[in-house]
Amino acid sequence: MINSTQWFTEQVPGAGSAFSLKIKQKLHEEQSPFQFIEIYETETFGNLMVIDGCTMVSTRDNFFYHEMISHPVLYTHPDPKSVCIIGGGDCGTLREVLKHSAIERVVQIDIDERVTRLAEIYFPELCESNNDPRAELKFIDGLQWVKDAKPGSVDIIIVDSTDPIGPAEGLFGAAFYRDCFNALSANGIVIQQSESALYHLKLMGEMRDAMALAGFGHFQTLFFPQCIYPSGWWSATMAAKSDIGRFREQDANNKHFATSYYNSAIHQAALACPEFFKKALAL
Amino acid sequence: MINSTQWFTEQVPGAGSAFSLKIKQKLHEEQSPFQFIEIYETETFGNLMVIDGCTMVSTRDNFFYHEMISHPVLYTHPDPKSVCIIGGGDCGTLREVLKHSAIERVVQIDIDERVTRLAEIYFPELCESNNDPRAELKFIDGLQWVKDAKPGSVDIIIVDSTDPIGPAEGLFGAAFYRDCFNALSANGIVIQQSESALYHLKLMGEMRDAMALAGFGHFQTLFFPQCIYPSGWWSATMAAKSDIGRFREQDANNKHFATSYYNSAIHQAALACPEFFKKALAL
Repeated sequence: MINSTQWFTEQVPGAGSAFSLKIKQKLHEEQSPFQFIEIYETETFGNLMVIDGCTMVSTRDNFFYHEMISHPVLYTHPDPKSVCIIGGGDCGTLREVLKHSAIERVVQIDIDERVTRLAEIYFPELCESNNDPRAELKFIDGLQWVKDAKPGSVDIIIVDSTDPIGPAEGLFGAAFYRDCFNALSANGIVIQQSESALYHLKLMGEMRDAMALAGFGHFQTLFFPQCIYPSGWWSATMAAKSDIGRFREQDANNKHFATSYYNSAIHQAALACPEFFKKALAL
Repeated sequence: MINSTQWFTEQVPGAGSAFSLKIKQKLHEEQSPFQFIEIYETETFGNLMVIDGCTMVSTRDNFFYHEMISHPVLYTHPDPKSVCIIGGGDCGTLREVLKHSAIERVVQIDIDERVTRLAEIYFPELCESNNDPRAELKFIDGLQWVKDAKPGSVDIIIVDSTDPIGPAEGLFGAAFYRDCFNALSANGIVIQQSESALYHLKLMGEMRDAMALAGFGHFQTLFFPQCIYPSGWWSATMAAKSDIGRFREQDANNKHFATSYYNSAIHQAALACPEFFKKALAL
């Protein structure tokens, strides 16, 4: 029996499955202007942030997601200088992006400042680069920021959002992708977390369709483990304006920073499409 | 709240996590001479077999495991004819192996006949090749069978066992691996499910050490998703007598049978080692 005093449980809507982590204590909870945020101390996964009942980030296993939403796209774009992160309030993606010395500017736009303020307290390691002079943290509506961005001014947009319900819903629509397309430079790429291929295959197809409608013509989906997310298997989808550039393998091999999951072999591995995925998306 | 009348829950010992599937009904339970077996009808994963409290196989997601424990090793050995499966009583691995037309003989040895008899009822699709004339099902002690096997008589041994506690414990020791080494032909390969790299890294190292002690000198670990197993991310480790043969990519590309997950890109992808794994195993 999994009781709610000793365990945090996320029941995946419609999936008929649930994942639970044993907790030592609840460290914090609050209703921000946008969402309900909880922080737990778990027995074996370090701290855990939960937003509107969904696991967001744990100390122990966030490295999979944060590394895979950042390094592959950064080593796919031929020469990225300017990155924008939509969402990503825990700052873990920002930290990974800033490991790339060629990056000159990263703007992180999360609508909910409380996520970042709580991450600074409960996930300080993810926030260690927040004061990097190349980083700018904004707490405004990402949809509006992208709409207003100077055309062609951003090389990479990373959509590090919650699920496509609640505040993040608009981040999965063609109108947003059209604004991304305009904001991106000629070789620009947008990457977005795209849920689980086991649970959300339909959404993954619809997302590509919406991106194609917005003008993007080249797609790659990355598959990677993410224990605390529904099904334990997650994905991110890249959409490029011109062409999905050649993977800069040599640069990835010579990277001068540490990672826990990512390396150039993992990068290429993550691009392999399962048979059922190819079939469902007619690839 | 996850209650035990509506959900089946596996708490992972020592891991501080749990995975639950919503159930429609319990279809069967029995104490066999070896283990406690339960069959559930789940809401979204089809039927589920549970042995001694651990999820074994579901209708919906068994394809990951069964394909990855069979096709990669079969396309790695240069010319496999004879395969032995230790465990694998649900017959899903047997079915995958028999898809390879070059295979002349498969002996499946599960100590517990009840697992197979229940699979025939509740997972009939996994048992569809049980009457293939190339297949032989034995319900005896696999340890003893391998010990008694004619030296050099088997090309591939697939250890499709439960976790290294209970009846399967001996299947993770150097004595068993030595018997495998002797039973295998010159290019022989043993492959064994090797748990989760996130949860069982120490065991994965110890397994390789025990395999090396037994004479094996060449190893490859395959990583793949497996939603219902602890952490949602599973592995299998290959150990070869002479050399890990070159992957027969052309043959895999030309395979004349259907798979749901496996293809030649997935094969190569599964071999990519995460940074933390390379570091922990000093690879």
